[in-house]
Amino acid sequence: MDRIYNFSAGPAVLPEEVLLEAQSEMLNYRGSGMSVMEMSHRSKAYQQIIDTAEADLRDLMGIPEDYQVLFMQGGASQQFAMVPMNLMKNGVADYIITGVWAKKAWQEAKMYGTANAVASSADKTFTYIPDCSDLPISENADYVYICENNTIYGTKFKELPNTKGKDLVADVSSCFLSEPVDITKYGMLYGGVQKNVGPAGVVIAVIRKDLIREEVWPGTPTMLRYKTHADNGSMYNTPPAYGIYICGKVFKWLKAMGGLEVMAARNEEKAAVLYDFLDQSDMFHGTVVKKDRSLMNVPFVTGDEALDAAFVKASQEAGFANLKGHRTVGGMRASIYNAMPLEGVKKLVAFMEDFETRHK
Amino acid sequence: MDRIYNFSAGPAVLPEEVLLEAQSEMLNYRGSGMSVMEMSHRSKAYQQIIDTAEADLRDLMGIPEDYQVLFMQGGASQQFAMVPMNLMKNGVADYIITGVWAKKAWQEAKMYGTANAVASSADKTFTYIPDCSDLPISENADYVYICENNTIYGTKFKELPNTKGKDLVADVSSCFLSEPVDITKYGMLYGGVQKNVGPAGVVIAVIRKDLIREEVWPGTPTMLRYKTHADNGSMYNTPPAYGIYICGKVFKWLKAMGGLEVMAARNEEKAAVLYDFLDQSDMFHGTVVKKDRSLMNVPFVTGDEALDAAFVKASQEAGFANLKGHRTVGGMRASIYNAMPLEGVKKLVAFMEDFETRHK
Repeated sequence: MDRIYNFSAGPAVLPEEVLLEAQSEMLNYRGSGMSVMEMSHRSKAYQQIIDTAEADLRDLMGIPEDYQVLFMQGGASQQFAMVPMNLMKNGVADYIITGVWAKKAWQEAKMYGTANAVASSADKTFTYIPDCSDLPISENADYVYICENNTIYGTKFKELPNTKGKDLVADVSSCFLSEPVDITKYGMLYGGVQKNVGPAGVVIAVIRKDLIREEVWPGTPTMLRYKTHADNGSMYNTPPAYGIYICGKVFKWLKAMGGLEVMAARNEEKAAVLYDFLDQSDMFHGTVVKKDRSLMNVPFVTGDEALDAAFVKASQEAGFANLKGHRTVGGMRASIYNAMPLEGVKKLVAFMEDFETRHK
Repeated sequence: MDRIYNFSAGPAVLPEEVLLEAQSEMLNYRGSGMSVMEMSHRSKAYQQIIDTAEADLRDLMGIPEDYQVLFMQGGASQQFAMVPMNLMKNGVADYIITGVWAKKAWQEAKMYGTANAVASSADKTFTYIPDCSDLPISENADYVYICENNTIYGTKFKELPNTKGKDLVADVSSCFLSEPVDITKYGMLYGGVQKNVGPAGVVIAVIRKDLIREEVWPGTPTMLRYKTHADNGSMYNTPPAYGIYICGKVFKWLKAMGGLEVMAARNEEKAAVLYDFLDQSDMFHGTVVKKDRSLMNVPFVTGDEALDAAFVKASQEAGFANLKGHRTVGGMRASIYNAMPLEGVKKLVAFMEDFETRHK
C-alpha cells in the first residue's frame, strides 16, 4: 500500500522529501558512520545540526537578535506551567479562552498567581474568536495569553488582541510556520512541533530575551526555567536530538518551497478549496464563524450523526485517514497543515462531492 | 564510509537491526500509509505500539502488576525535581552522592524538603562506591536515592544500599536493561533511554503504584505529577511517540537476543576484554576501584595528558568514535552498552595494544 492522505490533527503529515532524506541517513548521517539517534549531543556534528536548525528558523520567521529560540520538551501542556512560573512578575496574567487548550493553560496558571479570563467564546462552543479590540486588561498583568489557532474547534485569531501594551504570549502549536509572523508583536510564542514542524517530543519557544529572568516562581524546577535552556543553548541536558534534526529538515524544506509567504498562499489556496465546497454543499457544513476560520484545521458536520459516521468510515476506506472530528465537537475535521498537498484536499473534496451525490 | 564503532556515553550506539527496521518503515509503517512520526497518538496503530512496548519491557524486566510503567519526557534532569515533588510525604529524603548526577538530584531535592547526603565518594573524585551497609538513614526518610551506574566516573552499585526499610529510588539511565533486575527491591527506578534503550527524549520510570499519590508538593505542574501520566497510560498529552517506537524495537531486539540474563553475560564478557587489558597494560590504567567497576562505562588514562590526547586523536582516525573522557575526569572513556558488539571492544583493545607498542 502506498502513502495515504493523512488529515490527522497531530502528530500529522510530514513532507515526503523530509522522510526520504531521514530514511537515507538513518544508519549513517553524512559519513559520520552513525545515526543521528546515536550521536553525542556534545559532538561537532550535532552542534552543527542544532545551530543550523536555529539559524534556518530565525531566517524563516525573521526572528530578531533580541529574541531567544529555545528547543524544549514536555509539549504545550508543560508550557502551561512554565509560562506563569517564568513570566509572572506581579503574579497576574490575563487569558483569552477560545478552547480546551487555552482553558487548560488558564487553569494551570492559577496555581502560580492570579489568572483572569478576560474573554471567552465558551458560550457558543468556541466556534468564534471573541472581539479583542478593547478587553478589560489588568493594569498589572504580566502578559496576555492566547491560543492563536484552535486545533479542535478550527478557529484562528486573524488579528492579534489589543493587549494595551502588555506582552502577548501565544500558543501557536497548530499554526506554527503556516504564514509569515511579526515576532515583535509577541513577548513569547511557542508550539509543540507535532502538527506543522516535526515529530512529537519537541517544543519550540521564541521569547524576548528580557523576559528570561533569574527570578522565577519559588520551587520552579531547574528544567522548567527558560534561563536554564537559554544559558545552555537548549542543551542543559540531552535534548530531543532526533526530533530537532527532523525539524531542521522541515525548515530547509520550507525555505526550498519559498518561505512562509509562499506557504501562506498555498495554505489559503488549499483551505479555499475545502471551505468553498462546504459553503455550497447541501450536506456538509463548516462549524465555525466564517471570519475566524482556521487555514489549518477545518471541522465540518452533516448534522446527522449516523451520516457523519458513515462518511468517516467510507473516507477511511477510500484512503483518507483521520477525518473523524475531535470527541468534543463530533463530526469531521480535516487538518491540512503545510505538508498536506493541494492534491490531497482536491481529492478529498471530490470524494465528498461523490459521497453527497450517492447519499442524497 | 561504513558504520563505525561508537563509544559515546549517550546518545549512544543502537542495534543495527533496529535502525534497519526503522529505516524500512520510515515512510510507511506496516501498510498504514504513514510514518510513525505522522501517526495520531490516539490511533489504534499507535496504541498498539506503546502497549507492545510496555508489555515487552514488563516481560524483559519481570515487572510485577503492582508497579506502573511510565513513558515521560525531560530526561533524568527533570526527574531530579519530579522525584521529590511526588515522593516526599514527610519532606525528608536521603541521598547517596556518587557523582555529578546524584549531586544534581540532591541539590534539586533541597527545593522541596530536607535532602540529606548520607554518604559520598566525593573525597576520591567518585572513583568508588561508598560502603552502604549501615548508613545513617533518616527515621522519617520518604526514600533513599542513588544513581546506580555513574556514567562519568565508571562506577556501579554491585550491591544495592541497605535502606533500612525505606523505599529505594534509583536513576538507572546508564545501566538500564544491561542485566536482570529485581524490581521489588526498588520503590522506583527510572532512566533516560538515550544510553542503552533508544533515542534521547524519552524517560522510562517503573514505580510501585502506592507511591503514585494525589497529594504532591504544592505547585507541582500537572505534567510533573506521576499520577497524571499513570492515569492516562503515558498519553495525557502527545507522548514522544517516535522515541517510544524505537525503544519498543530495542525491547524486541533484547528479547530476540535472549533477554537480560544473556545481555548480562555478554556485557560481562565485553567488559572483561577491556578491563583485563587495562590491568596488564604498562601505559593504560583504569581509574576506578576494581570491585565497583561499571560494565557500561570504562574510563581510563595514560597518566600523561599529551599522550591521552594523542590516543584520542589516533583512535578517532582509526574509526573508534567518542573515546574522549568526560571533561571532569579527563583521559578516555569507552562506553560499551548493550548494542556495542564484542568485536568492537576486541578491535579497540587491539588498537590500544598497537598504540602502546608504537608509543613505548
